[in-house]
Amino acid sequence: MMTEKFPSRLLENAVNEFSKLPGIGRKTALRLVLHLLKQETNDVEIFGNSIIQARTEIKHCKVCHNISDHDVCNICSQPDRSGEIICVVETIRDVMAIENTRQFIGLYHVLGGIISPMDGIGPSDLEINSLVERVKEGTVSEVILALSTTMEGDTTNFYIYKKLKDYNIKISTLARGVSVGDELEYADELTLGRSIKNRLDFESSLSQ
Amino acid sequence: MMTEKFPSRLLENAVNEFSKLPGIGRKTALRLVLHLLKQETNDVEIFGNSIIQARTEIKHCKVCHNISDHDVCNICSQPDRSGEIICVVETIRDVMAIENTRQFIGLYHVLGGIISPMDGIGPSDLEINSLVERVKEGTVSEVILALSTTMEGDTTNFYIYKKLKDYNIKISTLARGVSVGDELEYADELTLGRSIKNRLDFESSLSQ
Repeated sequence: MMTEKFPSRLLENAVNEFSKLPGIGRKTALRLVLHLLKQETNDVEIFGNSIIQARTEIKHCKVCHNISDHDVCNICSQPDRSGEIICVVETIRDVMAIENTRQFIGLYHVLGGIISPMDGIGPSDLEINSLVERVKEGTVSEVILALSTTMEGDTTNFYIYKKLKDYNIKISTLARGVSVGDELEYADELTLGRSIKNRLDFESSLSQ
Repeated sequence: MMTEKFPSRLLENAVNEFSKLPGIGRKTALRLVLHLLKQETNDVEIFGNSIIQARTEIKHCKVCHNISDHDVCNICSQPDRSGEIICVVETIRDVMAIENTRQFIGLYHVLGGIISPMDGIGPSDLEINSLVERVKEGTVSEVILALSTTMEGDTTNFYIYKKLKDYNIKISTLARGVSVGDELEYADELTLGRSIKNRLDFESSLSQ
């Protein structure tokens, strides 16, 4: 496909842009662009602008670092949610997955990833210090570590545990109903809901 | 996923737009949007605008109906290509696939699909009359029918054959090196190149 000749430079540009997306090859990119060429101009403008607007206007919640339209996100600003429990997750996809279970009424803290030396991601690249700051404020009574059950997730769990263990709070982790080695966001709602209900004390989970 | 709650309306809009694309589910759409949120603003603007520009500015060649940046496409306007042979294809992806074989020096005619009553596509929805008009002009000596080797392709071949058989031209079809039942664009270049070189007379291909 390297030598492919496009009948139009504009088509080629759009295909090149689409094929920069993860998991989108050049044949798929071409199919998507040709699909869009058949849609109403107005609909394609809405599509293109929705992406640009998302990139330029979406903020990160200054409390939990979740994605948000405002300075403080919808979850952090809900008065009926308990600020005593903070659930620590990797990404906003995990927030959405846990919210879908309707089993959790506390707040979140989005790390923005997990410690992964192979990918060059260390503790300072993640929102760990801001988590410690939230705990220091004194209203938090429990931190739930809800990271992927992988080696990187375990490393990150343990790093955060060491940072927080001297504060007078409970540190828990998800019940291992989530199969080991699985990514959190692909767990079914029932399993994920149960594992957040039956969360374990972090120290006792280490001996299992 | 129906009840999923997005942390941001802007995020939700962009995900909704992406998941309208064929073959893109909501989880994939979310992954793509979150990927774009991590890119430079400028790059995302280029991405969004390349799509809008493609939709608003791309034309169709008024001769062959291929996609084009100009009124007449790059292929039709090349002086060294033979206007005596017209290769009839379904889509511009087929033009690109045949161009990649470098085995064909004639012109194309893009039908815009094939006759498919199941999808509500009849002969009048396709660029068949404009093909007949091109043949009527008298410079064409051969029409190659290069449609998918499916039932719909065979139906369309036969419909076009009936429309053109009274003109003094040769009507040929691709050598059946392309496996029956396969879509043209997924054939490898060698097979596709050979099948256009060893194209068969349409009438004799009927008896095989």
